[in-house]
Amino acid sequence: MALKCKLRSIVVCLWRRQTLLRSTSRNLNTLATDNRILKSPPLVSLDFPDLWTSSSTSTSYDAPSTHNLGNEEIARIIDGKQIADEIISAVGVEVRRMKNAIGEVPGLGVILVGERRDSLTYVNNKTKACEETGIKFELAQFPDTCTEDEVCDAIMRFNTDPSFHGILVQLPLPQHLNEEKILGVLRLEKDVDGFHPMNMGHLAMRGREPLFIPCTPKGCVELLIRSGVEIMGKNAVVIGRSNIVGLPVSLLLQRHNATVSVVNELTSNPEEITREADIVVSAVGIPNLVRGNWIKRGAVVLDVGTHPVEEEGCCEEGGYRLIGDVCFEEASRVASSITPVPGGVGPMTVAMLLCNTLQSASRRYKFV
Amino acid sequence: MALKCKLRSIVVCLWRRQTLLRSTSRNLNTLATDNRILKSPPLVSLDFPDLWTSSSTSTSYDAPSTHNLGNEEIARIIDGKQIADEIISAVGVEVRRMKNAIGEVPGLGVILVGERRDSLTYVNNKTKACEETGIKFELAQFPDTCTEDEVCDAIMRFNTDPSFHGILVQLPLPQHLNEEKILGVLRLEKDVDGFHPMNMGHLAMRGREPLFIPCTPKGCVELLIRSGVEIMGKNAVVIGRSNIVGLPVSLLLQRHNATVSVVNELTSNPEEITREADIVVSAVGIPNLVRGNWIKRGAVVLDVGTHPVEEEGCCEEGGYRLIGDVCFEEASRVASSITPVPGGVGPMTVAMLLCNTLQSASRRYKFV
Repeated sequence: MALKCKLRSIVVCLWRRQTLLRSTSRNLNTLATDNRILKSPPLVSLDFPDLWTSSSTSTSYDAPSTHNLGNEEIARIIDGKQIADEIISAVGVEVRRMKNAIGEVPGLGVILVGERRDSLTYVNNKTKACEETGIKFELAQFPDTCTEDEVCDAIMRFNTDPSFHGILVQLPLPQHLNEEKILGVLRLEKDVDGFHPMNMGHLAMRGREPLFIPCTPKGCVELLIRSGVEIMGKNAVVIGRSNIVGLPVSLLLQRHNATVSVVNELTSNPEEITREADIVVSAVGIPNLVRGNWIKRGAVVLDVGTHPVEEEGCCEEGGYRLIGDVCFEEASRVASSITPVPGGVGPMTVAMLLCNTLQSASRRYKFV
Repeated sequence: MALKCKLRSIVVCLWRRQTLLRSTSRNLNTLATDNRILKSPPLVSLDFPDLWTSSSTSTSYDAPSTHNLGNEEIARIIDGKQIADEIISAVGVEVRRMKNAIGEVPGLGVILVGERRDSLTYVNNKTKACEETGIKFELAQFPDTCTEDEVCDAIMRFNTDPSFHGILVQLPLPQHLNEEKILGVLRLEKDVDGFHPMNMGHLAMRGREPLFIPCTPKGCVELLIRSGVEIMGKNAVVIGRSNIVGLPVSLLLQRHNATVSVVNELTSNPEEITREADIVVSAVGIPNLVRGNWIKRGAVVLDVGTHPVEEEGCCEEGGYRLIGDVCFEEASRVASSITPVPGGVGPMTVAMLLCNTLQSASRRYKFV
């Protein structure tokens, strides 16, 4: 019977590479605007039929591209700020091209409730980036005490105003407001944050293309691609499973054909699992949760965590500085590449928001 | 700085257990019909706030419940057929109760295109189960050569007919038919297979409850729960990432607070990753892909794979027998519990389809 098992399990799989090559050339033109600016391909172009080998030892694809580090080497810093600036600048060029060609510009409506310091900072960054690129921007701001109806009315106004192509509700909302209900009002075609369950479903399902990929996950993958990090066939660990980062980044990495493990707060051995990863994405929000001994030598580390810490004499805006999930000093001695906090994934989130807004307007006006 | 890392990372997390207890008692009544028949709780009742500890060594929840096996012991067989029969019988009772109370019964419309032997078998099983429980059943059958419009028209008819509460398109469809387009016609409230992207998005997102959980994944989790297997905090590996099994089962196990890794056909070390798992779900369709040495001693193995093999003198219906993904003989010497093929997950898929159809009718008639 054991021999029978072995014999039955021999499945020839020579087509794998060819199928991959065929499928990646497919549908490359479905997101013209994105492809002009971003390196990330459309997701359906990454899909290919399941062709399993039964031999667990066959690995016909390329070995991990992370470079070996000597004991004294320090990881390459992935400069998210610089990459984001390049993308924002390219978005600006596209916005001007659109304005010159059809007399329209993309428009982004943002809803901000309350006065959380981090939310105010994020909205400020978005405002500045929109100004810089020529994207129309409007902020609907409400006090902490506002009602659901007031917020929904503002969304409805952006929904119906054709000069707005993207709407963003700055999260988290105060506890008395129903996030699901409020986000549910938002028109799918303007959901530039990509948090609509329909977008999330399409992000998860092979053969489907979401209208928008959530900004932070999209920024993570763009950073990997621009840093020359191969995703396909790699082991990736995502630490954290929030609806806005952990979940969609795990789905997106799977669409890019990584083997993904999602570590959550109940995982008994997070450091062991993380140590197996070629790519680590941490999105938890606990400063220095991920220590150097969690990281495999040569791994690529993306730190999405941001935790504001007040510090006397700190030169950063608002008198506080941001700390990531990853103990940078330790991890940078083990990883091959790592994003800093701040200046890593954060700026990419804003850049991707502009890309999504531009993509939405381009789709609306059939502008290629 | 390293000390600073350590100090900053100390986060007290005594609330974890209390929060868990509070959250599991929440929303237990949202799916009255399901809760009467199934042991699986509503998904939102399983959600709780992320409360991370920074100490990777703290594991305050219960240790895995799998029992230790001596070298000579054989895994317990999870009898999916018997459990499914119990559930189908309970559905029958509920259907009669509905008929007596309001004069209505649930209705299921099935679309079958072509003459694939496995599809015919599945549809036959569904027909029989509906007859057994008193669920109204109608089959719309088309030849391989039919057009998309013909199939869509049949779905539209089931969509508008109020006596049908569930519609199922037997997959896979012939290649010339656009699956996305055809499934897109299906009304969300009748999507008892749970394959609509909106359902998939809600399945993935914490805080959301899908209208329907896909049948096979739902059956897998119900088998685990009924077999007394703890899911929360366990390491689970899902082998395969199809839209109909691998993806939704990985999402569902995550909603049940497992740490989930999804192995795909490009994974370089599937056997190593699988060997770390307390729970293994294989849904690939390659006979005996998963060998005994892929399984950790004491793990629970659910074999979703079905591969028809013609065999002379085989007594099974249609002259062929089904082989699973898992080399049963080898794995049953290592696992603590294992599902056989046939008679494991397969019958549960049919039982869950009936549950979803009953749930849909109960929702429609507000019948509790």
